[in-house]
Amino acid sequence: MQVLVYGAGQLAQMMYLDGAALGINVMAVDVNNNTVVHPVSKLPLECTLEQAIELADALTVEFEHVPEPLLEQAQASGKLYPGIDAILVGADRVREKALLSGLAIPNCPYQVVDDLAQLDSCVDKLGERLIIKASRDGYDGYGQWRLKTASELPALKSQLAELDLKKVPLVVEQMLSFDREVSLIGARSKSGQVVVYPLAENLHHEGQLHVSVAPAIASSAALNEQARDIFTKLVNGMDYVGVLAVELFQCGDELLVNELAPRVHNSGHWSQAGSPTSQFENHLRAVLDLPLGLACNTGGEAAVSAMINIIGCDNHNMALLGVPGVHFNWYGKTVRRKRKMGHINVTASNYAELGSKLLSLSEYLSLAHFPCLSEEASRLASES
Amino acid sequence: MQVLVYGAGQLAQMMYLDGAALGINVMAVDVNNNTVVHPVSKLPLECTLEQAIELADALTVEFEHVPEPLLEQAQASGKLYPGIDAILVGADRVREKALLSGLAIPNCPYQVVDDLAQLDSCVDKLGERLIIKASRDGYDGYGQWRLKTASELPALKSQLAELDLKKVPLVVEQMLSFDREVSLIGARSKSGQVVVYPLAENLHHEGQLHVSVAPAIASSAALNEQARDIFTKLVNGMDYVGVLAVELFQCGDELLVNELAPRVHNSGHWSQAGSPTSQFENHLRAVLDLPLGLACNTGGEAAVSAMINIIGCDNHNMALLGVPGVHFNWYGKTVRRKRKMGHINVTASNYAELGSKLLSLSEYLSLAHFPCLSEEASRLASES
Repeated sequence: MQVLVYGAGQLAQMMYLDGAALGINVMAVDVNNNTVVHPVSKLPLECTLEQAIELADALTVEFEHVPEPLLEQAQASGKLYPGIDAILVGADRVREKALLSGLAIPNCPYQVVDDLAQLDSCVDKLGERLIIKASRDGYDGYGQWRLKTASELPALKSQLAELDLKKVPLVVEQMLSFDREVSLIGARSKSGQVVVYPLAENLHHEGQLHVSVAPAIASSAALNEQARDIFTKLVNGMDYVGVLAVELFQCGDELLVNELAPRVHNSGHWSQAGSPTSQFENHLRAVLDLPLGLACNTGGEAAVSAMINIIGCDNHNMALLGVPGVHFNWYGKTVRRKRKMGHINVTASNYAELGSKLLSLSEYLSLAHFPCLSEEASRLASES
Repeated sequence: MQVLVYGAGQLAQMMYLDGAALGINVMAVDVNNNTVVHPVSKLPLECTLEQAIELADALTVEFEHVPEPLLEQAQASGKLYPGIDAILVGADRVREKALLSGLAIPNCPYQVVDDLAQLDSCVDKLGERLIIKASRDGYDGYGQWRLKTASELPALKSQLAELDLKKVPLVVEQMLSFDREVSLIGARSKSGQVVVYPLAENLHHEGQLHVSVAPAIASSAALNEQARDIFTKLVNGMDYVGVLAVELFQCGDELLVNELAPRVHNSGHWSQAGSPTSQFENHLRAVLDLPLGLACNTGGEAAVSAMINIIGCDNHNMALLGVPGVHFNWYGKTVRRKRKMGHINVTASNYAELGSKLLSLSEYLSLAHFPCLSEEASRLASES
C-alpha cells in the first residue's frame, strides 16, 4: 500500500515511520517545488507528482495550507482523505466558523470583519476584550491581534490598515476567560468507524504548544463524552476521513471549539508512546479503510503521558534518556527560532510519577527553551 | 548520530525505524555485495562501505554469519559493537560451548566431534538420544541431525560422511527432555549498564520460531532472577555491548543455555508493542552509549504480549487489524517457503484476554501457515 502526503515535515516523517512497519509506503510532496521526496531523508524520489498520485492508494495532507491548485489536483484523483472541503475548513477561519455554527457546535462568539469600520460594531456586540485573527494563513500565533480595551481600537486599526480584508477577512472573537485548553484527537475511517483518544490538556507559551498531558487531569467521563459528541458531529457532518484534531476551551463543565486541524496534530504526539495505536498509524488506517486501532491510554507504566515540544534549540543532553519512560523524537531539521525541532514523550503510571519524571527531565532542559516545564512538573507532582 | 548495520534484512529495517524517530540514522550493508543500502527501500546509498564506516558512530550486525573479512574490517575501526569475538561466539557452536563452560553457565552436556569415529564415544558418554549440530552456518534448524537409538548410528554416519569435520566440527549434545523453551533478551551499554526484558516463552515448529509470549506464563521472580544472572555473567564475561539473546531450556526450576544470538532477536519482537522501549531502540542506545530504556512489560492494556511470525505466506487479510491490540509488522520481502515475511504483535491486559485475541486472529490466519496459533490461543485463554 502507498500513501502520498502533501507536506514533507515531521508529521509526514512520523507517518512514514509508522507506515513502514505496517508495510505501507509513505511518500511526501514538498509543496514548495512539487517534488516527491522521501519523508525522512527529504531526498527526491524517482517519481513525478503525477506518477505518485497514480501510484498511491490514498492521498492526504500534513498541513492545511497546501496551495489550492495542488489540493484540487489531489481531489480530482478521488483519493484525497480528508477531502478538499475539510482541508479548507482547517485553512480558513470563516469556513470553520460557518461549519461550527451550521452544526450547532459550541464555539466562541464571533463576527467576520471585511472592513475595519466593522470593528466598532464588534465591540458593541462582543465586548471590548477581543481576539482578532486573520482568517487564513494564521499558524502558531502568527496573524493574531488582541484588543483589551476599546481605547486601543484606533491603534489596532492603524496596525491592520495594510491588510486586504476583502481577500482575507478577519474573524473577531470574544476573549473568553476559560479554565484551560484541551484537545480531542480522533479518527474516522472511510467505512465510518470512529475512535477518539482521551482529552489532552495543552499548555501554550507565546502562541505555541509546549506541553500536552493525556489524559487531561480531572477530565471526567462526562467531559470526554461531550468531546466525543462534538467530534462525532463534526466528522459525520463533514463525511470526514482521517485524523481530526479539535482544539477546545474548557469553561467550567463546558467545552467550546477553538480551532480544527484536519490532520494529525502536535497535541496527539503523546499517543506514540502512550497509546496502543499512535495517531499516525490510525490516520493511515483511516485513509486506507483499514480497521482502526485502540485509542486509549495504554495503562500500567503508560497510564498517563506527557509530550514536551523541543522548540528553537538543538543542544539537548542525551543523558535525558536516563529518565525512565522517556521517548525521544527528533525531526532532523536545521534549528531556527521558534521552530519545532522534536518532542519528548514521557509515560508514567500516575500523574505524581509523571511530574517527578518531568522534574528530572527539567534538569537537562533549559528554562529559556522549556518555559512551561518545571511549573507543569510541580503541578503534576502534587497530584495524588 | 549514525549507525552502520551489517545485514540488510528486517532486523536492520526495524533498527532504522526506531532509530529514525530518535534522530539516529541507520544504514545497512548488504553483505552479498558490500554495498551500503537504505534499510527499508534496500536502494544503494551514495556512499562506499569505507565511507560509511568512517561516518558511523557505531557499527553493529543484524546476524552473526557476516563474512569474517568484513567483520575484521569493522573491528579494525574500533567501533564494532558487539565486538568480533562475541559475534563469532554466536556463529560457531564450538566457541559458544567453550564460552559457556568457561563461565560455568549451565548448558546441555556435549562433545565436539571432528571425526565420525568419535560418535561412538558420544553415545557412551551422553547416551543414545543425541542432537548433532554443525558448529557453523547452522540457522533455523538447518545443519541439525538427531539420533534416537544407537542402532541409527551407521545410517547417520553415512549421512554425515561428506562433511569436512576438520573444517566445521560437529557439536553433539544430549537430547534433553525439557519442559519448555524460553529466551532472555537484554542489553548492555558501552558504560556497562544492563537491562533485561522478562523471560519470553517460545513455540517452535519444524525448527522455526512461530509464537513468543512475554512474560512467559508462570515465570517466577526466581526464574527471571536466574536468567538475569546468566545474562549478566555472559555480558560481563564477554565485555559485551548491545542486545544479546539467550535461548534457554527450562527443566523444572532450572535453566540451561541452548544458544546465544549476539544481536536483536525474533523472540524479542514483542517488545515493540509490549514494552516502553523496544529491543531495537535499546540496542541502538547500547552501542551509542546512551542510557538504556525500561525493559519491562508496559502493563495495563499491554501487560502481556504475544508475537506471531508470518512465515512463507503473504496473503493475509488486513481485516485482522480489527482485533484490538494488534500491531502488524511487514518486512516487504518476496515470499518464499519458510521465509519470515513479517510478524504480528498482540497486547492484552491478561493471558485469558490475550488467548481470546489470538483466537480471533486465528480466524484470519490459515492453520497451514500458523500451525501453533489456535492451540496456543486455547492454552492462554484457559489461564485465569
